[in-house]
Amino acid sequence: MFSTELVQTAEKLLELCRNKSIMLATAESCTGGLIAGVLTEIAGSSAVVDRGFVTYSNEAKHEALGVGTGLLDQYGAVSDVVAKAMAEGALQRSRAAMTVAVTGIAGPGGGSNTKPVGLVYIATAFKNQETQCRKMLFEGDRSAIRSQTIAAALDFMKDRIT
Amino acid sequence: MFSTELVQTAEKLLELCRNKSIMLATAESCTGGLIAGVLTEIAGSSAVVDRGFVTYSNEAKHEALGVGTGLLDQYGAVSDVVAKAMAEGALQRSRAAMTVAVTGIAGPGGGSNTKPVGLVYIATAFKNQETQCRKMLFEGDRSAIRSQTIAAALDFMKDRIT
Repeated sequence: MFSTELVQTAEKLLELCRNKSIMLATAESCTGGLIAGVLTEIAGSSAVVDRGFVTYSNEAKHEALGVGTGLLDQYGAVSDVVAKAMAEGALQRSRAAMTVAVTGIAGPGGGSNTKPVGLVYIATAFKNQETQCRKMLFEGDRSAIRSQTIAAALDFMKDRIT
Repeated sequence: MFSTELVQTAEKLLELCRNKSIMLATAESCTGGLIAGVLTEIAGSSAVVDRGFVTYSNEAKHEALGVGTGLLDQYGAVSDVVAKAMAEGALQRSRAAMTVAVTGIAGPGGGSNTKPVGLVYIATAFKNQETQCRKMLFEGDRSAIRSQTIAAALDFMKDRIT
């Protein structure tokens, strides 16, 4: 289902987490569950993956992750602020020590001059550490943008614990 | 990422849902987010997909979906009863009119005589209708079992609305 490279990256991340006893949770918008999906492709991932939130609608971001409706109105769902709030919401609502959140425009519709198709914010929250966010601009079609987002999210988590 | 056949099935399901104004939510254990993942592979899926719950741990099933710890203890996470409770929990905790829940043993570990690798329960809950459950026994490796589960879950939802 996933490329060998993606699965190997997931495997490495899970091994690092296992060694450090770090549980993970995900909060996904444009990837729609695929980050949790690739993590759980690995046998034995249940020792590391606590849960995932697929918050596709704004209502879901608010209700499931506690993202303020004020933030969603002011900055839009695809923003640095909302990505961070999603990651922190997942941290508070799970048993994970680290969470990753993604929100972006996978296209083909939904893009604008200021927020083009391919724009993705990825945030990681870590217990007792500052939440971080990366702004990405990916190229390609919907599937390519989602694949690159998954890879970048796995890399970001790896960077946080190495 | 997904096979053409799987994406086409997801496309058909989403079209049916759009025509009938039915929003969907997912509650996934062994598929780890991939049902939501294939649904959101389709452009415009945000009109139909409300949210997803990836409840990999028992704690997540209880906390995010309200599955009773008594049910989890008595029947085990991989059971008809828990699959139905997951689907109904997702219905209550989302804006969806129909939800699908899957819980199973994707392997290679975790199997037993009574609950072998490949055993998967898929439940669908529908507003004001009886919750239904199908017991499946899939063959193949972890990835094959997960793919067959996704396909069966999409088919089950299609059957409920046609």
